[in-house]
Formats: sequence, structure tokens, C-alpha cells
Amino acid sequence: MQRTEIKWLWQNATELADKQVTVGGWVKTIRDSKQLGFIELNDGSNFNNLQIVFEDSKIDNFKDVAKFNVGAAIIVTGAVVLTPNAKQPLEIHAQKIELEGASAPDYPLQKKRHSLEYLRSIAHLRPRTNTFAAVFRVRSVAAYAIHKFFNERGFVYAHTPLITGSDCEGAGEMFRITTLDAKNPPLKEDGSVDFSQDFFGKMTCLTVSGQLEAECMAMAFAKVYTFGPTFRAENSNTARHAAEFWMIEPEIAFADLDDDMQLAQDMIKYVLKYVMEQCPAEMKFFNDFYDPDKALISRLTNLVDSDFGKVTYTEAVKLLEEHKDEFDYPVYWGCDLQTEHERYLTEKIFKKPVFVTDYPKEIKAFYMRMNDDNKTVAAMDLLVPGVGEIIGGSQREERLDVLLSRMEELDLKADDYSWYLDLRRYGGTKHAGYGLGFERLIMYMTGISNIRDVLPFPRTTGSAEY
Amino acid sequence: MQRTEIKWLWQNATELADKQVTVGGWVKTIRDSKQLGFIELNDGSNFNNLQIVFEDSKIDNFKDVAKFNVGAAIIVTGAVVLTPNAKQPLEIHAQKIELEGASAPDYPLQKKRHSLEYLRSIAHLRPRTNTFAAVFRVRSVAAYAIHKFFNERGFVYAHTPLITGSDCEGAGEMFRITTLDAKNPPLKEDGSVDFSQDFFGKMTCLTVSGQLEAECMAMAFAKVYTFGPTFRAENSNTARHAAEFWMIEPEIAFADLDDDMQLAQDMIKYVLKYVMEQCPAEMKFFNDFYDPDKALISRLTNLVDSDFGKVTYTEAVKLLEEHKDEFDYPVYWGCDLQTEHERYLTEKIFKKPVFVTDYPKEIKAFYMRMNDDNKTVAAMDLLVPGVGEIIGGSQREERLDVLLSRMEELDLKADDYSWYLDLRRYGGTKHAGYGLGFERLIMYMTGISNIRDVLPFPRTTGSAEY
Repeated sequence: MQRTEIKWLWQNATELADKQVTVGGWVKTIRDSKQLGFIELNDGSNFNNLQIVFEDSKIDNFKDVAKFNVGAAIIVTGAVVLTPNAKQPLEIHAQKIELEGASAPDYPLQKKRHSLEYLRSIAHLRPRTNTFAAVFRVRSVAAYAIHKFFNERGFVYAHTPLITGSDCEGAGEMFRITTLDAKNPPLKEDGSVDFSQDFFGKMTCLTVSGQLEAECMAMAFAKVYTFGPTFRAENSNTARHAAEFWMIEPEIAFADLDDDMQLAQDMIKYVLKYVMEQCPAEMKFFNDFYDPDKALISRLTNLVDSDFGKVTYTEAVKLLEEHKDEFDYPVYWGCDLQTEHERYLTEKIFKKPVFVTDYPKEIKAFYMRMNDDNKTVAAMDLLVPGVGEIIGGSQREERLDVLLSRMEELDLKADDYSWYLDLRRYGGTKHAGYGLGFERLIMYMTGISNIRDVLPFPRTTGSAEY
Repeated sequence: MQRTEIKWLWQNATELADKQVTVGGWVKTIRDSKQLGFIELNDGSNFNNLQIVFEDSKIDNFKDVAKFNVGAAIIVTGAVVLTPNAKQPLEIHAQKIELEGASAPDYPLQKKRHSLEYLRSIAHLRPRTNTFAAVFRVRSVAAYAIHKFFNERGFVYAHTPLITGSDCEGAGEMFRITTLDAKNPPLKEDGSVDFSQDFFGKMTCLTVSGQLEAECMAMAFAKVYTFGPTFRAENSNTARHAAEFWMIEPEIAFADLDDDMQLAQDMIKYVLKYVMEQCPAEMKFFNDFYDPDKALISRLTNLVDSDFGKVTYTEAVKLLEEHKDEFDYPVYWGCDLQTEHERYLTEKIFKKPVFVTDYPKEIKAFYMRMNDDNKTVAAMDLLVPGVGEIIGGSQREERLDVLLSRMEELDLKADDYSWYLDLRRYGGTKHAGYGLGFERLIMYMTGISNIRDVLPFPRTTGSAEY
């Protein structure tokens, strides 16, 4: 069977008048009067459906076809008829309609609109709805845009490991992975679990970041990025947290915090532009149905042409203190900014994405480069309207002595990080990097407000279905 | 600092005569006589090094530079001098050399050649060697080629979950993931571990395949693929097995086993061609140093222009039985082919990649489509020289009644797979797919014979360093 895709029909409509084609897809709607019927068909290649016109006088199984249920898979051969005055460029007048796979009458996705909550309960079927067809197409195109962006700039894509033996002890937010007997694990003489008998000969966890390994690669290739799943065993049941999510982590050598922010901004703009070009129908759908002001596209378009905001943490706190009555959480120099603070900055004060830089060292990780004030580190978070933080990054501490003294302050054992410290012993360079939460980028681009609706099969506290 | 990359210099050499440039990179070799010295510099953008010539009369820190150790990171400003008669197109005559990061004298990667085994023990530094610079560049370019291939064909990239609640019970080759106390897990009244108190409210594992979830997506988008990490808790300490590896799993609707094999062949050829075009220096290196006959490139080039072999399992067994004395393991109809059998088929009999099709149902998975003989299923494995199996695929059983009776034979509970069965209840189509082991593809393309040397930080039985 030579199946022609609906997207191809759409793109080549003018050359196809009266041509015979065969299409295959799923019935989205079907209606008929006595001798005439209409099917809206979708084959996954195109956001918009293809109209199939079927007539009793033209096909030999009109009555059977008229009984097809929504959701059925069918194969249609027919003639292309151009419809220049309609929304769609063409329709198919069927000569033959075959049932590829029937759909039972209890198919859950009937024409009426379903809530996103309900659709989560049938995650195996929801990609067939308009919303999720658009979400997962945009997700796919955005992922490709990210690879394309880094590839064009000569970055090496590094597959850092997900299973890690580092940082496991006492890491409250990590998942342990094991093949030991769950009930009766082997014990050591002191009564503690003998992880030397576990699969990897020690305790292992699922990684929360590939950064440290990416730094190893950056000290060879100068420009690398990761793009893979990441995990948090955080018991937070919010619309912004998933236990398994995808993260992009570039790492660049011979680079400082400004280079890092420039890269982040270039990347975000590149992805937005690419998705808007490649997915106009999907983006129009989000604009019309998921943006209260129907202004999603104009907002993103403006963004591509303007610079992101930039503010130091210290200035940001001053700006927020002027509005402290509007927040649930206190805001003061030294505090970790809450989502409400982040969103206020980006939505109310800057009204666009904004980088917050130079955070107090106490609320940031050990590897971030100490500023000359000895109080703040060369960190940056990118905040975007509607979501809050989507990127967290920093210049890394390349000075071995400074790094070691910071680790000592934080009670981190140098022995546990000897390989990481080696990067500073052997040809270390100024370098920087960041982590982009991929789902949050998709939420930002689509207006979808729950992370469970941008992951095909979300894993969250208490839920790992499918 | 405006750093020019060596790759760019290489590509634009003819226009750069006498121009001043600044480069940054790592010292691969350094030697000097009294007033003149040479540095081979690599910045990760280019497989080949850039020669830096430094003279006492031209720079003000000649003595310091001459003492730089191998591995040091430096920044060099100088004039481009074309070298049309040398292997490299140009060299830089330094006007200024700054030390960005020193390299301690005990830097492990001195000029001498190191064994791959030794280099595994310093995985954080090995990307700086020729072999691993080439391996990880090829890996990155091959990954991009895969995304590009599927993107050009309109596939949706689907991020299927790594944490799974399916198939966990009794799955010997799966890693359990948990946040329960390792020593004193909560118990139920019957004394068994109470997984309802675990993070996801049940026992969860790391996935061995995203196929079943990809099938859900394929029944909406018709053409999808996954590309992500996959896990096996297999206690096999071989050169071909890792506990964490990357897999590509396309899934196509309205497609049968022939379509599946065509897709696999097109994909492999596309990736080989793309990598040979994009990485000529790296591929020449593998050809000259990792192929006993220095015939890697000619072999891969021929392959791109010819069809892969095709043989049924039944025919393959007959062919192998003629050589049974050459094998350690017995070969007979019904046996699971061993690596030695697979390699014999592809290396000795077909002398090229070969698809083996239509395996006995007993040695294949429950979801594979039953052939009319009721003995074999529409499965295919792709075997390649030097590696053995790199792809395993099948047409999937789309007939609900056949699938249910097969599951019953295998004692699989329909309730556990209700969502998977729904795909056959609601508009199922003929469909097919396969899994490509990404590391094995890289091994095949490079001639590197141990999977530990194509993964940046390999995870194998007893080993999860870094």
C-alpha cells in the first residue's frame, strides 16, 4: 500500500487536482445523511484533518462505512478535489474505503471536549486529541531544534550517565537503584546494608544532573551539551515538578557568565523561531485555546526580536522588597527566591524573560565561581513569564585552591571528587554552563500550565502508570 | 576574548594568510630548541592539531612557554602562515601566548600511546586522546544523523518514560528504583515489602524498552521514534553489554515487516553516509588504526551502495548447520542464535549486514505478529560484521484475539496490559518497529570492539565510576 500523507497533500495541493491518492488514518468525526457522508481523517502527519466525502453511488460499502465509529483506522482511495474557498485546501472524494482497524463504541475520545485531568487518565490515547497532538508535535520539533542549534555551532552531544555512584549518600532527592533483595538485603558486620553486593558494587542512584561529567567532556571538546532524562525524588505535588524530566546541559570552555547567558538567549530564541516556523497550525491552536489574551504568538514573536532582561540578585531583591506585601513568602537579601517572586519579576516588573545573576553563595552549589565580593557567585537563572525558572546556570570555579576551600566549608570530601578536581589540575579553563528544563520550555511555548500535560507518560509522586 | 576555532581556520585557510587570530586550546605536544619552539594545539573543534610556532625573538615569555606541560590550556594570538606543502593547511606564528590553566607534571596523558584498558581508568581525561576524541565526535554526529533522518521523514520524537511500573514483578534483568529505607523497608501484614509506600505507590523499575509506549504514540502520529537510555541488569561481563546504553526505537503504523526492514536499512545507510561526510579525519583514523585490513572506509562505502542480505531464520539455521563443527554452541531449528552464529552468518556467509526474519515464536516476545504457519513470528534481527545483532524488530500483533490467546499461552495477565490492548480495540493498524542499540552501531562504524570504549562513562557489572 502506497500511503500518501496528509501533510504532503496539504503542501502540494495545487498540483494534485483530480489525481487519485490513497490515504490512511484515524476517523476524528463521521456524519452522514442518506446517500452522502463526511469523514474528518487525521493521520498524524498534519495537525489539520482531511475531509473525506463518501457517496452511496461511488463506493460499494456505504452502509458499513456510515457505521464506522470515531477512532477507527481506515484506508481511503479517492480523487483529490481542490477547495480553494474552504479552510482546508482540498478534500478527497472516496472511491474505496477499507476498514483497517475498528473502534469499539466505547471509545473514550468522542467529539466533546474533555478536561486535561480526564485525559491524563487515558495517557495512552490522549495523543489522538488536538491538544496532545499539538503538544507532542511541538515537543518533538523543539527537541530537534535544540539538537540543530548546538550542531550548527559545532557542539558535541555528550551522553552522560544516568546511573551515578556519586552524591548518593544522604542525597534526599535521589532515587536509589538496586538489584538487592528488597526485604532481606545483605548486611555488613555492623548491621548496615552491604552495598558492595549490589549490582555496581556500591550504592547507586539516578542522576540529578550530568553537569560534572559534561565538564570532563568540555575540557576536551570545548563545547558540549547533554540532552537526556533527569530525576528528582522530590515529594512535591505541583504543576511544575515531575520525578522524571528531560534536561539540556551545555558546557562551554574558554567562557564566562556573559558567554553563558548569550548562549542561553540565542538557544531559546532559536528554538522559539524554529517551532513557530515549523508548527504554525499547532501554535495557532495554543494561541487561540491556551492563552487568555490570544497573544501567545505575538508575545513569542516579539521576544525573538528583543533582548532578555538582566538584573543582579541584589537588585532583584530590592525591586521585590518594594512589593513585599504582595507575596506569601518573605523576600530579603539571602533568601532563595520563590516561584511567586520569580514570576513577579518576569511577569510584572520586566514583562519578558529575565536573567537574575550573582546569587549569594549560600544558596548555590559548591562548583559556582566565587565573585570578587566573596559573597556572591557567578550564577544565573533565567525566569520566564507563566513558568518562572527554566534555566539555571553558572560560571564554574576553575581555581583549584578556591574550589577546595569552598568544598571544605561545605564539608565535601576532596577524595570523592578527585576526578572533578583533576579538571582543574590539568589544563583547566574558565568555563560555564547551564541546565534547561525541557518541559518548562514546552510549557512556556505552548501555554500549557501543568507539566503532566507536556510529558507523554508523566512520572510524579504516587504515579507511574503505563 | 574572541576565540577562533581551529576547524574554522582549517576550512577558511586560503583567505587567512597573514591575518592575526586568537586561538585557545590544550597543548598536545610541545618541544623547543634554544630560540624556537613548536606546540601542537587542539581545541576540540578539529580532530587534527594546529601547529603553533613560537620564537624567543617574537614573544616576551619564551622561557615560561617552553616549560608548559602537555595538557596545559593556553591562549595564543599570532599570524596565520599558510603551509601548502605540509599535511596541515596552516600554522600560527605566535605573537603572544598566555597560560589559561597549567597542567601538573604528572598529567597522565603523555605522548606515548596508552592501552584502552588503562584509559578506561581515567575516563574523565580520555576524551583528550585521539581515539576518544574521534569516538565521541562520531557518536555525537551519528546521534545527530539519526535525529535528522527521522525528522526529514516526518517522524515525531517521543520521550517515553524510563521509570516504569510495568513488567517489574519477576523481571530478573531490571533495576528496581526506590526511595524506601534500604535496611528496614515498610512491610505489609503478610511480611512482604509494602511498595505502596514507595515513591510511586508501587514497585518501579528502569525500563528495558520504550516500545509499548511508543506504540501508543504511533497510533496517533503514525511515525514515531524514541532515542534515549535503556537499562539491563544483566550480569554479563562481555565486550558487548552495558547496564546503561542508548537505544533508538522507531514505530510505524500502516506498516509491515518489509516496511520495517526498509526503514532500518535506510536509517543505517543514512547514518553511515552522514558520518563519513562529516567526520573524514576521524573515520580515516579508525580506518588506519582500528581496522586490521585498513578497509573500514571502503567497506562502509560499499555498504551504502548495496542492499543488505535477507534470510529467514529457518534458512539461516540450515546454512549454519552445514558448519556446526565450527561452533561452541549447538545450532538447530528452535535454538536462540548465539553471537558466534550471528557473526558467522554476517561475516562468513553473507559478508555484509543481513536481516534474519521469521523466528520461532518460542524465542520471541509476546507482541510479535504470528505468521500464517502458526510457528514463526514476523520478527527480524539485523546482524552486522564484527558486532552481531544491532537491531531487533518485528511487526506487532494487531489482532486483539490472536494477541490475547498468545498472552494466555505465556501466562501474561490481560489486566496488566489493558492500555496496550486498548490500542487494538480502538483503531489499531498493522504496525511495526525495531530497536537499534546505539553503542553497537558506533562499534560497527568505528571498529572499536569494546562497548566500554564508546560510552563516555560506561556502567557495567560492578562498575559505576564518575
